[in-house]
Amino acid sequence: MENIALPLDEHVGHGYTATKDALTKRLSRIEGQVRGVGRMVNEDKYCIDILAQISAINAALHKVSLGLLEEHVSHCVVNAAEQSIQTGDRSYVDEKVSEVTTAIDRLLR
Amino acid sequence: MENIALPLDEHVGHGYTATKDALTKRLSRIEGQVRGVGRMVNEDKYCIDILAQISAINAALHKVSLGLLEEHVSHCVVNAAEQSIQTGDRSYVDEKVSEVTTAIDRLLR
Amino acid sequence: MENIALPLDEHVGHGYTATKDALTKRLSRIEGQVRGVGRMVNEDKYCIDILAQISAINAALHKVSLGLLEEHVSHCVVNAAEQSIQTGDRSYVDEKVSEVTTAIDRLLR
Amino acid sequence: MENIALPLDEHVGHGYTATKDALTKRLSRIEGQVRGVGRMVNEDKYCIDILAQISAINAALHKVSLGLLEEHVSHCVVNAAEQSIQTGDRSYVDEKVSEVTTAIDRLLR
Repeated sequence: MENIALPLDEHVGHGYTATKDALTKRLSRIEGQVRGVGRMVNEDKYCIDILAQISAINAALHKVSLGLLEEHVSHCVVNAAEQSIQTGDRSYVDEKVSEVTTAIDRLLR
Repeated sequence: MENIALPLDEHVGHGYTATKDALTKRLSRIEGQVRGVGRMVNEDKYCIDILAQISAINAALHKVSLGLLEEHVSHCVVNAAEQSIQTGDRSYVDEKVSEVTTAIDRLLR
Repeated sequence: MENIALPLDEHVGHGYTATKDALTKRLSRIEGQVRGVGRMVNEDKYCIDILAQISAINAALHKVSLGLLEEHVSHCVVNAAEQSIQTGDRSYVDEKVSEVTTAIDRLLR
Repeated sequence: MENIALPLDEHVGHGYTATKDALTKRLSRIEGQVRGVGRMVNEDKYCIDILAQISAINAALHKVSLGLLEEHVSHCVVNAAEQSIQTGDRSYVDEKVSEVTTAIDRLLR
């Protein structure tokens, strides 16, 4: 097993480290959008315009979730699969698959 | 037309005025939740835990949207219906119904 | 109250009568799509292709729901608002608004 | 590489083969529910009751999607990860991860 392209020790962090800056920026933009909605409510803005803003926030959060899910499957699940093939024990990868399914279930509700 | 229970001049504001404080509180709590997610990303917290937090934010935003929609139908659409019966012109209420449908459509996406 | 443009007796049916044919056609198309997904499962088609089909069904059901909601607000809620202005009793329209909010809540989940 | 618990040749089919009967039953039940909604429309049933039925169909389709996704990640993605570790080529597993993310994205819309 010497020529393995993806040694386990390469999988440090949770996979989203590379995209951490992008995520942080996106989240502070969403924070600002939520603050903006609070301001609209305070200034008695029209409901329909406020709802349009909330839909924009939903879409932005959806993108963040999807990015995190992709990183998670790409790193943690794939890493677990590689471990399982080395240890011969499938329980760890099964646990990771079950975790990711629960996360998707929660997002789909 | 003397015994009308709901004179038009009672319908001031956009209907959510009464619940404005509650809405403002909820939105600043959501703002804090989004900030919390940003912090989790910065501290390299586990993806699945971050995704669970985002699902909680989705659910909180869903409640805000639903409250705004209910107030909007209850006040603006009902008010428009009452105007239409007095003016004999249905175009205003039709416009309001179309607006609310567009808002629901955006939220369901 | 003689010049009312929208006498109550005009509001027969549940509002979607006019679009009944279109709705029936759409629903039998969706039924066929669900049957098609069953066939794909039986023929061991690729998961991702099956999931794409289910997303198409979700989108088609979303359109049906939205059409029903629009008709419902446009007819039942508006009709209830007109009744409330004549009877001076707001309880009926409040009940209808609450019903439609519950329906939207269920669809948003 | 003798003690590997999950030889590649065990991964036949698309993973949902074991649950094929359960899936087929579920889908024919959903097909019946859609037909039932068509009947409700034909019999001029109350919009809100029809919308409640559609929400039940959405929930049933959601469960089918989630089951397919779980099987897919558990079999195809994990299988691809195991292949990548053996071939030293990550492109196949990356392709699978990207496919599953697209599927989730479509379902979340």
